[in-house]
Amino acid sequence: MPEAATDLAAAMRALAEQHLSASDLAEQAIAAHDPALNAYAAWTPETTRAQAAAADAARQAGATTGPLMGVPVSLKDIYAAAGWRTYAGSPKALPAEPWERDGPLVAKLRRQLATITGKTNTVEFAFSGLGTNPHWGTPRNPWNRARVAGGSSSGAAVSVREGSALLALGTDTAGSIRVPAAMNGLAGLKMGAGQWPTEGIVPLSHLLDTPGLIARTAQDLAIGYGALNGDAPGAAPMARPDLTGVRLCVPAQVVWDDTAPGIAEAVESALRELEAAGAKLLRRDVPEVLAAVEVFRTTNLAGPDLYRLLSTELTGWLDTVDPSIRQRLDKATDVPAWQWLAARARVAELSRAAAERLRDCDALVAPTVALTPPEIDAVQAPDAFARANGFALRNTAVGNYLTMAGVTLPAGLDAAGMPVGLQLLGQPGGEAGLLALAQTVERVLGTSDQRLGTPPAA
Amino acid sequence: MPEAATDLAAAMRALAEQHLSASDLAEQAIAAHDPALNAYAAWTPETTRAQAAAADAARQAGATTGPLMGVPVSLKDIYAAAGWRTYAGSPKALPAEPWERDGPLVAKLRRQLATITGKTNTVEFAFSGLGTNPHWGTPRNPWNRARVAGGSSSGAAVSVREGSALLALGTDTAGSIRVPAAMNGLAGLKMGAGQWPTEGIVPLSHLLDTPGLIARTAQDLAIGYGALNGDAPGAAPMARPDLTGVRLCVPAQVVWDDTAPGIAEAVESALRELEAAGAKLLRRDVPEVLAAVEVFRTTNLAGPDLYRLLSTELTGWLDTVDPSIRQRLDKATDVPAWQWLAARARVAELSRAAAERLRDCDALVAPTVALTPPEIDAVQAPDAFARANGFALRNTAVGNYLTMAGVTLPAGLDAAGMPVGLQLLGQPGGEAGLLALAQTVERVLGTSDQRLGTPPAA
Repeated sequence: MPEAATDLAAAMRALAEQHLSASDLAEQAIAAHDPALNAYAAWTPETTRAQAAAADAARQAGATTGPLMGVPVSLKDIYAAAGWRTYAGSPKALPAEPWERDGPLVAKLRRQLATITGKTNTVEFAFSGLGTNPHWGTPRNPWNRARVAGGSSSGAAVSVREGSALLALGTDTAGSIRVPAAMNGLAGLKMGAGQWPTEGIVPLSHLLDTPGLIARTAQDLAIGYGALNGDAPGAAPMARPDLTGVRLCVPAQVVWDDTAPGIAEAVESALRELEAAGAKLLRRDVPEVLAAVEVFRTTNLAGPDLYRLLSTELTGWLDTVDPSIRQRLDKATDVPAWQWLAARARVAELSRAAAERLRDCDALVAPTVALTPPEIDAVQAPDAFARANGFALRNTAVGNYLTMAGVTLPAGLDAAGMPVGLQLLGQPGGEAGLLALAQTVERVLGTSDQRLGTPPAA
Repeated sequence: MPEAATDLAAAMRALAEQHLSASDLAEQAIAAHDPALNAYAAWTPETTRAQAAAADAARQAGATTGPLMGVPVSLKDIYAAAGWRTYAGSPKALPAEPWERDGPLVAKLRRQLATITGKTNTVEFAFSGLGTNPHWGTPRNPWNRARVAGGSSSGAAVSVREGSALLALGTDTAGSIRVPAAMNGLAGLKMGAGQWPTEGIVPLSHLLDTPGLIARTAQDLAIGYGALNGDAPGAAPMARPDLTGVRLCVPAQVVWDDTAPGIAEAVESALRELEAAGAKLLRRDVPEVLAAVEVFRTTNLAGPDLYRLLSTELTGWLDTVDPSIRQRLDKATDVPAWQWLAARARVAELSRAAAERLRDCDALVAPTVALTPPEIDAVQAPDAFARANGFALRNTAVGNYLTMAGVTLPAGLDAAGMPVGLQLLGQPGGEAGLLALAQTVERVLGTSDQRLGTPPAA
């Protein structure tokens, strides 16, 4: 077999130069899959091979269908797709209509003849951030298999980490893409609110849900973004030429508080390297960051929306829901509508104020996650789970509650040897610029393999 | 003084042909004002004269500033406008920032040098449909001064009826434009959700609030729509050439139930005249109409939003709120967020289903209001008020809960000699087409003056 393509950019080059076929990429993806990591709810190698063969046949017939033609892509199992059931991490398949029909983002993958490798494991209804799931088993973190992989897009991150997918579709309501991407030493993109359609994705919060991508590198995120943004597949945003004049705003508030050993150090070290490469660090008070965390801590914005889903549309699913999720859902039934609306108004007001305050910032930067991925056994007890979950999502929730777009990139390893992420937040609609910046940052810091090395062998 | 222009179209012609100046129109408006009808919370004739003089000066200097240049226009007192306080029907002026600053629709009036005649009375925070207000007094219905004028845009309708304004800006959350327009024998336009900005308007329900217009005729509505729609003042939608091929869908459900004597008859008679003029009447089941009324009856969608406003932004206003409104606000605090979200989802689902079912309809038609405007004394008791209020808004709420645009036109007089409205509902974004249809309907039925005559002298 030819030499493996370990990232999406390399795979696209190899396909274009005919060093590799889509079928070669599919076989590499299948060979890379490690069932013990438990990335997939539905792992479907025969379907993978059939799609790859179709892409090869189309290419041989002279057709080009888009940047993701023949590229192995995994789908978080809350994306509906024809040919797979959708469980959304629950024990029962959701109704076939509409949950076995391609939504708009999946339809874009299909039209490009991407090779869908299967449905990845998710926290049940995507309603927590550590990646635990009692029904399907908790995916393992390849950097330390006793630890969580982060969530809710847990399997999405592990699929890219293990190499069974070169791009993963996930969703992010308070950090569900950025947390597992950071915990796996990967790159993650959360789109700004309203930028990409959420039809065909099992809803958690109509207000905060955003689709996005996990990939090996910022360059791969840019390729995936170009392929899926807008009406037709387009070119990937280019890297900026350099960091000269780039303004990175570093909030004084909350994001540095109580970070686990080695996390602040890794991020600070990365920021100093970016400064040395020409970026300007603007350290400042951003009170909206703290205020957004306060709203996240005090008002359950997603819970009432999920309870609505499970009591009016997916009736029956409530009875079997993971107890750690049930507990938060039951609390959500007590939230009065006027308080929910007040929190929504507060989010809108904070978003406007933050956009105004950050007008002169190319990105707002912070550690992506403030804690070391906990050991799975350590978060079985409800109280320990709740504490770790809230803490894991704290810094990423800033992005959702200020309705910003976000990227995470690998910054280093913490004192426990686990990956640490650098979060870049920008305004919705500015994703292309954020990805241009992220690629330049990646050139300075190095890719994940260069900066972190690779996880230990099993 | 030259002959009065009794409608907007005539005033515009007279201004263009220099038979009348803006100052002439202002004097006519001032002379037409009848304080006993209580249309205005702020009646400001000196400001009216100054604005008219400015419009005349601009015209003499060769400037044309838009279709509404020099036209007397009234503002419902929940629109913020520089130079007037905003009370929103409450006993205390709202904070000057932002409530004494032009919002986007008022700014469009000002840029055109319209002559703003004052702020019209409204139900407190626009939260009921009969037009009652214990703080400012209930505006009187010119057709029978013992009866209500309808609401919440009560003064808006009376200002046009009495002739102190040729166009009135109002808002409609469950019928607040169409109900008073119908009860005064006038034409009213409620925009589709999201079509016109609601900034600068005291919010009642972020979900259901829509701006709109009250005028003498459908033609005047079309002129006002052209002047205020889009980025720059534009031409009014033209009338359709005739009604040949026009499909008017008549729902079997609920809108005909329990109509007061003479109302169904007046509307049926109007429909038969339209049929004779070439329109096709499609009488059919529209279950979404009944379902929308059920949501309106069972779930308080606006209440929690208003309670949020009065408990987080306009703190202090709750203490003095009209008891008939307070009662419904207190109930609104019990609505759980998940139920509110379920009702919102239901509204979205019903709107989609109705749009699909009504694809072949140019408009959905019904009586605008099912009851005779009650006597003011008869709706003092809370129970009588609640019954009449819910009934007054039933047919118009269909438009809001199916997120449609709506027009009301005078259809006739009921058995009590009070005006009856014909409601035309269409899809949001289709307002220009709806106004083209309404103008043609008006040519068949006659204008208000032709069809209803005029109210008795005081």
